[in-house]
Amino acid sequence: MPGRSPSDVIKREVREASAYTLKYLEADVKLDQNENPREIPDSLKRKIMARFGELGWRQYPEFTPSRMTAAISRFTGWPADGILVGNGSNELILAALVATAAPGKTVAMPQPTFTVYRLLASAMGATIREAPLRADMTFDVERLREAGRDSDVLIVCSPNNPTGTFLPAADLSRILASARGLVIVDEAYHEFSRQSAAPLLERFDNLIVLRTFSKAMAIAGLRFGYMLASPGIAREVNKVKLPYNVNVFTLTAAEVLIDASGEMEGSIRAVIEDRERLKAALDVRPGVEAFPSAANFVLFRTAHPAGEVFERLYENGVLVRDVSGYPMLERSLRVSVGTAGENARFLEALDDALEALDAQG
Amino acid sequence: MPGRSPSDVIKREVREASAYTLKYLEADVKLDQNENPREIPDSLKRKIMARFGELGWRQYPEFTPSRMTAAISRFTGWPADGILVGNGSNELILAALVATAAPGKTVAMPQPTFTVYRLLASAMGATIREAPLRADMTFDVERLREAGRDSDVLIVCSPNNPTGTFLPAADLSRILASARGLVIVDEAYHEFSRQSAAPLLERFDNLIVLRTFSKAMAIAGLRFGYMLASPGIAREVNKVKLPYNVNVFTLTAAEVLIDASGEMEGSIRAVIEDRERLKAALDVRPGVEAFPSAANFVLFRTAHPAGEVFERLYENGVLVRDVSGYPMLERSLRVSVGTAGENARFLEALDDALEALDAQG
Repeated sequence: MPGRSPSDVIKREVREASAYTLKYLEADVKLDQNENPREIPDSLKRKIMARFGELGWRQYPEFTPSRMTAAISRFTGWPADGILVGNGSNELILAALVATAAPGKTVAMPQPTFTVYRLLASAMGATIREAPLRADMTFDVERLREAGRDSDVLIVCSPNNPTGTFLPAADLSRILASARGLVIVDEAYHEFSRQSAAPLLERFDNLIVLRTFSKAMAIAGLRFGYMLASPGIAREVNKVKLPYNVNVFTLTAAEVLIDASGEMEGSIRAVIEDRERLKAALDVRPGVEAFPSAANFVLFRTAHPAGEVFERLYENGVLVRDVSGYPMLERSLRVSVGTAGENARFLEALDDALEALDAQG
Repeated sequence: MPGRSPSDVIKREVREASAYTLKYLEADVKLDQNENPREIPDSLKRKIMARFGELGWRQYPEFTPSRMTAAISRFTGWPADGILVGNGSNELILAALVATAAPGKTVAMPQPTFTVYRLLASAMGATIREAPLRADMTFDVERLREAGRDSDVLIVCSPNNPTGTFLPAADLSRILASARGLVIVDEAYHEFSRQSAAPLLERFDNLIVLRTFSKAMAIAGLRFGYMLASPGIAREVNKVKLPYNVNVFTLTAAEVLIDASGEMEGSIRAVIEDRERLKAALDVRPGVEAFPSAANFVLFRTAHPAGEVFERLYENGVLVRDVSGYPMLERSLRVSVGTAGENARFLEALDDALEALDAQG
């Protein structure tokens, strides 16, 4: 079909969207993707590999991974028929939007927040409604309540990426009580906040809680996430979730990790402590403004263009995320909490960068 | 939100859909999911495990798995910028539909065919147009051409699941030449047909070819599939494909398998030979009608209700698929090609089942 262009077949919403991309850069100190700075213990890896070695690879995973949902049910206290598992929590965000979003429907979200919500909701043809954060990066609860009242779906990332902002349960409950439709709380970072929206599931059957094993549980490379929701909602979202979506290796790893979740506690505590040290260290630096974070990263801004700070850090072997393209985040960068040594390397590189940029004028 | 029901938040198209489900049943001889009857060689498994053992798990897979797309490019001869990889080819079907399907758009497909196409296209709000197969289960090319002329997307599974029917390249080319929009050819079973639509990619930039490693490549449990398309189409579909969608273990396994694809040839040849033997064995059985298959399964029907045949086979330890719920497939079952021993067990159980059912009258 010579001369045919994508515009003949691809939906306008998709053609007009920018791709969510991330340039792959090598770095000594990689603090750009909010990964856990520590691998899971070797003893757990050996256990996973041994258990996996006994499995066949040629057969599909179970259609409904019932052993897995039972394990998550024990882990969370939520009934298995309200649990779905995904190839990362992203897949469950997509499934929830396929089940709910369409032209004529409204999907709301705070801004700035994780880019993928807007990208997917727009691709579904939904109208996007944004509820800006306050200037101090806290959630504007009244704006979120209004957005929830006027929308079919409200997606809140809490702690929020890329700001680290946390939405307290009391505020969330008010939002849920007046929401017209679903409220999806993406809790990718909840372990670092020591709080969760999950207890509200008992009271609000319009709540969906999403979690991932990519951050605190340290297996971003294996892709695992799960959804907690009322059984009625889970049943509907399950219809549009792809079958066999989590591979047998990842199912094995996630099961072992759930049984050994106590062993991850030390690494979570270390990240929280190191986050507070990192925030304090940024706070005392002149010309640096850091925002409080309940996640495993810290948002900060300087007097200089973020791209220039990014480049100088990168030249010094430290990779962070330039988030200045987000609304409200001019001159801002996001740094993941690394090991104590990595955080020290980052701070040193930042001092060098700012000194050089200050000197330039 | 007490009293809220899913109908307040879930799209009508999804609420009204039946879930695609498969009851999990244990069986000695499992011939219900068109899996490869043989695991990949142990030597390859050891190589994959060893290579994987050197990788970290805490970091996300590469944003764009460029080593993987380069490997597929060598494997297929198609340029890497026209290649996307997925967590099974199902994920790429979904991404292609998110990019193209919406209310007001039409998605066409033959019937009977793989259930998931209709389910996902309906969930996207698209109008479904069906092009029934002929009574002998071959594709009705004129009907497919008409469907392609009148639709935004036409999805053809070739060899077709659950019938085994193959669409020759000359027919596909005529369909492509007159199609108004995209034509997606799902080649999950192409290795067993010894033919592919891929050579047509050079001539038709409205063609998408999907493939999977779940059948001939024998890693259904690991979930891997890929898409070949014009770079312009791949770029747009990539926008709505989730980032980091294939986990690092599966990427490792798929890379090793591509390098060793010659080693899979023996198992593919065995399946093709055993399929022909199985078809011939069914043909000589009175009261059994089997259809020619270019895949790794055989569709057949008997004089008895499929559910009764299924149950009797299952009681004898043989699990097949009752496909009598599909349009046109009354009294039909689908049996995957197993090992020679499994196929013999199936035939024996079928003889017992038909004898008993014939005796019942």
